[in-house]
Amino acid sequence: MSTVNSDFHIKREIRILGIDDSALLSEKVMVVGTIFRGGDWMDGVIRADITKDGLDATDIICNMIKRSKHYGQIRAVMLDGITYAGFNVVDIQMMYRQTGIPVIVVMRSKPDFEKIKSALKNFLDGEERWKIIERAGEIEEITGEKKKNSIYVQRAGISLESVNKIIRLTSIRSNIPEPLRVAHLIATGIILGESRGKA
Amino acid sequence: MSTVNSDFHIKREIRILGIDDSALLSEKVMVVGTIFRGGDWMDGVIRADITKDGLDATDIICNMIKRSKHYGQIRAVMLDGITYAGFNVVDIQMMYRQTGIPVIVVMRSKPDFEKIKSALKNFLDGEERWKIIERAGEIEEITGEKKKNSIYVQRAGISLESVNKIIRLTSIRSNIPEPLRVAHLIATGIILGESRGKA
Repeated sequence: MSTVNSDFHIKREIRILGIDDSALLSEKVMVVGTIFRGGDWMDGVIRADITKDGLDATDIICNMIKRSKHYGQIRAVMLDGITYAGFNVVDIQMMYRQTGIPVIVVMRSKPDFEKIKSALKNFLDGEERWKIIERAGEIEEITGEKKKNSIYVQRAGISLESVNKIIRLTSIRSNIPEPLRVAHLIATGIILGESRGKA
Repeated sequence: MSTVNSDFHIKREIRILGIDDSALLSEKVMVVGTIFRGGDWMDGVIRADITKDGLDATDIICNMIKRSKHYGQIRAVMLDGITYAGFNVVDIQMMYRQTGIPVIVVMRSKPDFEKIKSALKNFLDGEERWKIIERAGEIEEITGEKKKNSIYVQRAGISLESVNKIIRLTSIRSNIPEPLRVAHLIATGIILGESRGKA
């Protein structure tokens, strides 16, 4: 499935799309994508809406990417975890197949799978959601310069070595890559009136 | 009135707020502010809504600034022209008095005052709006390296020399300062689904 580990030369200006969601204030939750050149420069912003606790995130995000004028340039998509808008789980293998763009999931800490599994019992299609989570694959650690700066990743269509390079290239202001840090500022700022917290 | 020309040492990481509006799609028009450190790094996003062709932009933008957690750090506010959301004119002298922060208005080209004056005839309070436009003061040219990169500015509470320094420091990707370029990408991207055009 994700056996293609498209290893590529990573230029300093590689185009990366970072996607975050906004606060859970209503049934429709805004997701914001930022198109960055490396960690330096934002080239564009895209937006779409997904359903709180729905199962439409994968399709809607894929469509948002494919209709963007930046689609042909984007070399990797970064997600802030795989559950958006509550428990709207993103199928990263499907996303890679549908868009042809490698996917990197970034997490500040290891997810608590027992807690997630337990919460999914409240969903009729909880098992389907759990399978999507399992399909996202192994969680790997990317060690920062200091141990406390480590982050965790999952990936589709890209080698760990390339993930490592892209994370280092783009994490210039914190241990979170700029495309995700800025997508978070936008999503919270627009919905809450002022940005807050960390991606 | 704007006799105080607070000249200050301009650090590379000076905090600048750039404000742009979104497309005129409804009665309420979103304005987006980006808080930048110099031209490099976005620290935050703020948002508010003003009325299409209303006269509430000055008050609402001042309140948006004063309630922000970044208020104490912001050293200059940049506007993309002084008419937002149609003909909702921003009083930059009033803004400087209310916030204590110098205001820099940035324009790609000299505004067509005859056209504006003529359009204002459709407003009962057209004369009041025209006075606010006059109060924004002289339009000065900031020459780029190439003549075609020149921009035009108006200002309140700041010397032309300081304006020049701040424009040069922050215009690292185009002839438009980063806080305005990025505010424009966010405002159009969020409202239209994908960012477009130039600030």
